[in-house]
Amino acid sequence: MRFDEAYSGNVFIGATQDWDAAQAVIYGMPMDWTVSFRPGSRFGPARVREVSLVLEEYSPYLRREMTEVKYYDAGDIPLPFGNPEKSVAKIGAFVDKVLSHGKIPFGLGGEHLVTWPVVREVYRHYPDLAVIHLDAHADLRTDYEGEALSHATPLRKIAELIGPQNVYQFGIRSGTKEEFEYAERSGIHFHPFDVVEPLRSELPGLKGRPVYVTVDIDVLDPAFAPGTGTPEPGGITSRELLEAIRLIARSDVRVVGADIVEVAPVYDPTEQTPVAAAKVLREMLIGFVK
Amino acid sequence: MRFDEAYSGNVFIGATQDWDAAQAVIYGMPMDWTVSFRPGSRFGPARVREVSLVLEEYSPYLRREMTEVKYYDAGDIPLPFGNPEKSVAKIGAFVDKVLSHGKIPFGLGGEHLVTWPVVREVYRHYPDLAVIHLDAHADLRTDYEGEALSHATPLRKIAELIGPQNVYQFGIRSGTKEEFEYAERSGIHFHPFDVVEPLRSELPGLKGRPVYVTVDIDVLDPAFAPGTGTPEPGGITSRELLEAIRLIARSDVRVVGADIVEVAPVYDPTEQTPVAAAKVLREMLIGFVK
Amino acid sequence: MRFDEAYSGNVFIGATQDWDAAQAVIYGMPMDWTVSFRPGSRFGPARVREVSLVLEEYSPYLRREMTEVKYYDAGDIPLPFGNPEKSVAKIGAFVDKVLSHGKIPFGLGGEHLVTWPVVREVYRHYPDLAVIHLDAHADLRTDYEGEALSHATPLRKIAELIGPQNVYQFGIRSGTKEEFEYAERSGIHFHPFDVVEPLRSELPGLKGRPVYVTVDIDVLDPAFAPGTGTPEPGGITSRELLEAIRLIARSDVRVVGADIVEVAPVYDPTEQTPVAAAKVLREMLIGFVK
Amino acid sequence: MRFDEAYSGNVFIGATQDWDAAQAVIYGMPMDWTVSFRPGSRFGPARVREVSLVLEEYSPYLRREMTEVKYYDAGDIPLPFGNPEKSVAKIGAFVDKVLSHGKIPFGLGGEHLVTWPVVREVYRHYPDLAVIHLDAHADLRTDYEGEALSHATPLRKIAELIGPQNVYQFGIRSGTKEEFEYAERSGIHFHPFDVVEPLRSELPGLKGRPVYVTVDIDVLDPAFAPGTGTPEPGGITSRELLEAIRLIARSDVRVVGADIVEVAPVYDPTEQTPVAAAKVLREMLIGFVK
Amino acid sequence: MRFDEAYSGNVFIGATQDWDAAQAVIYGMPMDWTVSFRPGSRFGPARVREVSLVLEEYSPYLRREMTEVKYYDAGDIPLPFGNPEKSVAKIGAFVDKVLSHGKIPFGLGGEHLVTWPVVREVYRHYPDLAVIHLDAHADLRTDYEGEALSHATPLRKIAELIGPQNVYQFGIRSGTKEEFEYAERSGIHFHPFDVVEPLRSELPGLKGRPVYVTVDIDVLDPAFAPGTGTPEPGGITSRELLEAIRLIARSDVRVVGADIVEVAPVYDPTEQTPVAAAKVLREMLIGFVK
Amino acid sequence: MRFDEAYSGNVFIGATQDWDAAQAVIYGMPMDWTVSFRPGSRFGPARVREVSLVLEEYSPYLRREMTEVKYYDAGDIPLPFGNPEKSVAKIGAFVDKVLSHGKIPFGLGGEHLVTWPVVREVYRHYPDLAVIHLDAHADLRTDYEGEALSHATPLRKIAELIGPQNVYQFGIRSGTKEEFEYAERSGIHFHPFDVVEPLRSELPGLKGRPVYVTVDIDVLDPAFAPGTGTPEPGGITSRELLEAIRLIARSDVRVVGADIVEVAPVYDPTEQTPVAAAKVLREMLIGFVK
Repeated sequence: MRFDEAYSGNVFIGATQDWDAAQAVIYGMPMDWTVSFRPGSRFGPARVREVSLVLEEYSPYLRREMTEVKYYDAGDIPLPFGNPEKSVAKIGAFVDKVLSHGKIPFGLGGEHLVTWPVVREVYRHYPDLAVIHLDAHADLRTDYEGEALSHATPLRKIAELIGPQNVYQFGIRSGTKEEFEYAERSGIHFHPFDVVEPLRSELPGLKGRPVYVTVDIDVLDPAFAPGTGTPEPGGITSRELLEAIRLIARSDVRVVGADIVEVAPVYDPTEQTPVAAAKVLREMLIGFVK
Repeated sequence: MRFDEAYSGNVFIGATQDWDAAQAVIYGMPMDWTVSFRPGSRFGPARVREVSLVLEEYSPYLRREMTEVKYYDAGDIPLPFGNPEKSVAKIGAFVDKVLSHGKIPFGLGGEHLVTWPVVREVYRHYPDLAVIHLDAHADLRTDYEGEALSHATPLRKIAELIGPQNVYQFGIRSGTKEEFEYAERSGIHFHPFDVVEPLRSELPGLKGRPVYVTVDIDVLDPAFAPGTGTPEPGGITSRELLEAIRLIARSDVRVVGADIVEVAPVYDPTEQTPVAAAKVLREMLIGFVK
Repeated sequence: MRFDEAYSGNVFIGATQDWDAAQAVIYGMPMDWTVSFRPGSRFGPARVREVSLVLEEYSPYLRREMTEVKYYDAGDIPLPFGNPEKSVAKIGAFVDKVLSHGKIPFGLGGEHLVTWPVVREVYRHYPDLAVIHLDAHADLRTDYEGEALSHATPLRKIAELIGPQNVYQFGIRSGTKEEFEYAERSGIHFHPFDVVEPLRSELPGLKGRPVYVTVDIDVLDPAFAPGTGTPEPGGITSRELLEAIRLIARSDVRVVGADIVEVAPVYDPTEQTPVAAAKVLREMLIGFVK
Repeated sequence: MRFDEAYSGNVFIGATQDWDAAQAVIYGMPMDWTVSFRPGSRFGPARVREVSLVLEEYSPYLRREMTEVKYYDAGDIPLPFGNPEKSVAKIGAFVDKVLSHGKIPFGLGGEHLVTWPVVREVYRHYPDLAVIHLDAHADLRTDYEGEALSHATPLRKIAELIGPQNVYQFGIRSGTKEEFEYAERSGIHFHPFDVVEPLRSELPGLKGRPVYVTVDIDVLDPAFAPGTGTPEPGGITSRELLEAIRLIARSDVRVVGADIVEVAPVYDPTEQTPVAAAKVLREMLIGFVK
Repeated sequence: MRFDEAYSGNVFIGATQDWDAAQAVIYGMPMDWTVSFRPGSRFGPARVREVSLVLEEYSPYLRREMTEVKYYDAGDIPLPFGNPEKSVAKIGAFVDKVLSHGKIPFGLGGEHLVTWPVVREVYRHYPDLAVIHLDAHADLRTDYEGEALSHATPLRKIAELIGPQNVYQFGIRSGTKEEFEYAERSGIHFHPFDVVEPLRSELPGLKGRPVYVTVDIDVLDPAFAPGTGTPEPGGITSRELLEAIRLIARSDVRVVGADIVEVAPVYDPTEQTPVAAAKVLREMLIGFVK
Repeated sequence: MRFDEAYSGNVFIGATQDWDAAQAVIYGMPMDWTVSFRPGSRFGPARVREVSLVLEEYSPYLRREMTEVKYYDAGDIPLPFGNPEKSVAKIGAFVDKVLSHGKIPFGLGGEHLVTWPVVREVYRHYPDLAVIHLDAHADLRTDYEGEALSHATPLRKIAELIGPQNVYQFGIRSGTKEEFEYAERSGIHFHPFDVVEPLRSELPGLKGRPVYVTVDIDVLDPAFAPGTGTPEPGGITSRELLEAIRLIARSDVRVVGADIVEVAPVYDPTEQTPVAAAKVLREMLIGFVK
């Protein structure tokens, strides 16, 4: 009796209502408890769905239609407000279920900490996992003012879990001196400032491997994505980000999960930020789900 | 598998997922094709749901909780873009279904024209129907630049259908000279400018009758509801509107349907307009569903 | 060949293009050079015209239509940027022309200093002039940081020109201690905080006299007019302001000029402030031009 | 060497730089870690200072100037991000110092939880303390989703510390059923919906007692204060709030501390919310510091 | 008596008031009736004029001044609200008049459908016409949900009228699969994604021909033009768009008409979108009118 | 007793409170009296400080930390409102003091006129001075509507003081014909449109010389800095601006003063403009103070 296909964008454009048939699952993680500057990404997933109506279902970049892919939109995971520990646990439990059903998880943040429990689960299912990380910030701190579960730490935790040599970072232009030193000495494939060219050269080395792709929307310059918690001038353009997704889709890696995080709608009355995130998600769905 | 209870406000707060058990049904009518000044109310229903999370489930006005009422949120009716005729038909068909199942329809607009097909159906089920109309504008034109299906005509069409003497208008402060003359000579119970006091005196005369309540959010002064298509200074306060709903809820009428329309979120970055609409809807649900 | 009646609001709604037939003349004074807090009222007149399209041409308050009045919209006076002296001179010269043709000037500001050259000219034509002033601020300083031509001084200059006993101030809720002391001891008819009741009692005493009415939009509470340079909480409602205009229109004074000033659109994305100013101007035109 | 009197509003207008001479101390508590709906009040104190430049130093309500009061602006307390326990401890330590120097604390929030550590300290210095609370929300929960240190609990904690019979609540229009039942049966002086009249009748009963005044800006209707985390339609006007402050200032209570909280600037591009808070703070300083 | 040269931007900067002397005519088409996602471009032409005051009259790109060109600003064509058929007819009639007087039409939209009646008239006057189209969207549908007069169809109608081989499209990055297939097989000179380089290579082939240039502001990335109805990330920069105009101006084509459409101001509080459109119009006037 | 290190951004991030130890001094010049289009830069310096909290203290561009530099933040110079002459004098006096103490001035505007008194003082201390100017506008007028002290004249005055051959302009894309002609014939090192490449070629010629660097934020395209008074499409990206600062920092010039001006926050609800200015200031501090 529910009009899920309706105008109002309650679900991401083109989603199926048939869980069993779905190859992929979209889910929101509306959490911003640990954000240090401008909170608000808890409202990101809903707005990305709402504006997805602006998109065509055909990708001229990939020359393929969304209708060739089956994905289910599960809505947002109900997260215990203000509690990072329990939130992380609930996210992990849901993603485990998605993976156990043989489906590919596509997450919408929320702050970047949400990537940590997802990758932990994906790694359990794919021990040979590599992670591709597009972001303005290194997110490599051991802790933020004493707290290990923070929006500033997920990639450090991931690097320590799966090994730094399995982490590929692109576009980083902000961090502490310690983070940059760790990135450079730990064995991380670390590419500050730029995305497209270094990605093009790294992808052949990942041939055949299962890969998780995590995109912080602030890898874009604030001109292209002002609606985010910690805007960092000097970023890439939306053309470059779309090209990066296309490169991964056309490569020989096997994407086993992906997310796009840190959309905070209140800072962007133009809505271009959720629109950019929605287009990236469309390209990821069309390009990563074979 | 869908998190409808989730944080992101995909459904109105407190809605049940059990259609059969529901006494009432919420549905959106995302249509603004005939708006003459500032369009945008097509995005109203989704935003009202989204911000409904700010509300408590208890009404201190009515001293009752939402949990004592069972209502289903059907999402938005998929309306054929730019086509008033077909939109009106689809709305009518859905409302007929709601009424045929013995449930009370609670609609979210969308422009005010959406009320016309709803009342037409409600009147078929309740021939003794009276309509209570709270609005800044009379909406009594026979046509708008030649078009009878317009946001400026629904109350005229309703008055001609159910008889002017069964129409009760409150708070009207804008219209053509012809509309005011029609209102005053046709037999409509017409109360310009004010709401609470005239409503208090009219309600006893409606005792026992089935009543449809339609609220245009612009009955509020733009200070209280700036996010609307045709703001009209000189309106009532939100306290007065809440008191009006309480008066109807406490009266001896039988509410058989209601709506709240003309929320256009883009004009209100503060979100106070959808929040006001959400609170009015909560009060109507708690107060009108016995 | 110019579509001045066009959709885009280049002229105030309902204006005639026939200068000779016009009883009244609307003109803008796009000046904010001396504003101390938030500048921006230079864009006020244009936006008031633009949003005037939202209005009906009929006033249910006065039960009269705009078509019963003939007024010309002259556009904005080209003012020498950043130069109060020359701006004041140009405004005076234009108003003199309007008055010499026997027409009633209706000005749109701009900062409140613009009222000074207007009243100076009106007073030359009507030596028995009284001034009705609705404002949050007393505007009674002798100077602002040494400058006599300031947005904080126009009423002082007017009081000294026409005599304090001919100045009627309403709604004032902000000023220096010196301004309040001057207001109270100089003979000004001074009514802080409130507007409607004191106006109702003062109007009979003005019977038969020529009156200039100057309305600073910030007499409204910021809830009703946030788009202004120096918002001052604790003001009146838009219903009260409309009632004040109605009282003057229904009284036995002869309005020989009026203005509405200090609309600064950039601070009000909802546009309710220019809409309120446009409605006040409509009521003044319908009510003051006999 | 620092221009603290400068244009940019680094300190609240009229503050002295002489700590020793100060009778009162302004301080910010930039914390919103436990906010459930819209975060952002961490930026409140800075914006209140910034816009305080719009104010005159004279209060026509109290007929007194700010220059007759000496107050120091200490800036914002550096709070450990995301950690309610440590934040509460730091606030308490600072307020203890203010009180030990015989000065009156005037706090700027931040979420309402900040009032809890302040009142705890004030109560240690004034065991006969009563608390006057103006708010839309009861804030009387024992916990929020299991967490006792929450923006929903401070008044419950205060009531349990100083005794419910010493708590006076005004304007409350939102809460759970349990909160309203507790308010009514516990002995709290509980006045839902209204502020001015019940305050007028309660004040004589507080004669001579030390009183702490806590104002949540959302006691105002969202029309008057849209920039807040949990807007609740149906509130009072800014005139009523100013009158409430005047009533307390003119009464025979002895104010030993006060705060104004929950200003979240990002939701209010008009800035009327911080302006309202700044005016309330001015009135509290002029009226409460004898 | 009208101050059309005035500060408020009632006409485009530098326009003459002498129709007879004018080589070119600016006119607005304030229509957005068929927009599927975010309406609002009806307010575009007025805002482009208003912000044109920010521009210098000299183009350093073309090393020429606006004063060397004579153009008249006709205001906005009064369009019958909500009626595409009659709107299209009125636009056609006006443009026919402009062309019959030997003047070059420069149109401001409004939605892109407005280009259809303009090109139809231009083609009647110049049967050898070619059309240069800069846009994010192909606009090549045969209909949109059954409606042939839609913002999604104008280029299809034009292609069918003047022959696909006379249509040159640049920058297209969105459309259905069918549109892209039609573009590629029909003979259209179709250049997706990029503008400057393909334009540079196509222009010599157009030598000596009459050309109509239509620019949808959304050819720019949303970063450069967020104020539009259907923002599409991945677009070109404003530098590239200005270079494209310069290339056409410096080429050997003869521009016989041009437009810039789809500016929807409400989505862009920064006003950069109408400013960009105004600058493009300045460059087109200086560069296309010889 | 003041928490200057506090969360609220009262001072620029990382500033010392020890004047004597400071190598550099940050100061605001909150002045926009002579702005012709959109005023508001008077609020720029405060907002740049406020958002500086988003920044890390480490620059990966320069591989150096802010803690390696000592700078004092003096707040904003109290400027006499609306009076360019006195404002210019007060700025000059303060900068003279900074220079006399052997410290490097880093100014925050405010309109660009503020650079004139600063450079005049710097030139007195460094007669071999060269000026590097990054801007969209030439600022080379002799006067603006008769006024020599204008936001449109500072570089002309500077060129006449220090000799045009000592002025280096980059990125200029707007001005009158006269300004461009003057720039090209006077001997100014004039590089319209572009910044990075011409700067790279000019820097070797400045080896060893004292240089003042003035950056108008509108050298960025409005996409990257919409919050400014006279946005000019066609500008550079934030990556290019950061690269320009890095080139100067790595060159053999000796920077003896710098500023960043024309941030007008009200036009940019996303705050990306003050964030960009803050990052540029961080890079200038880390890169220019050896």
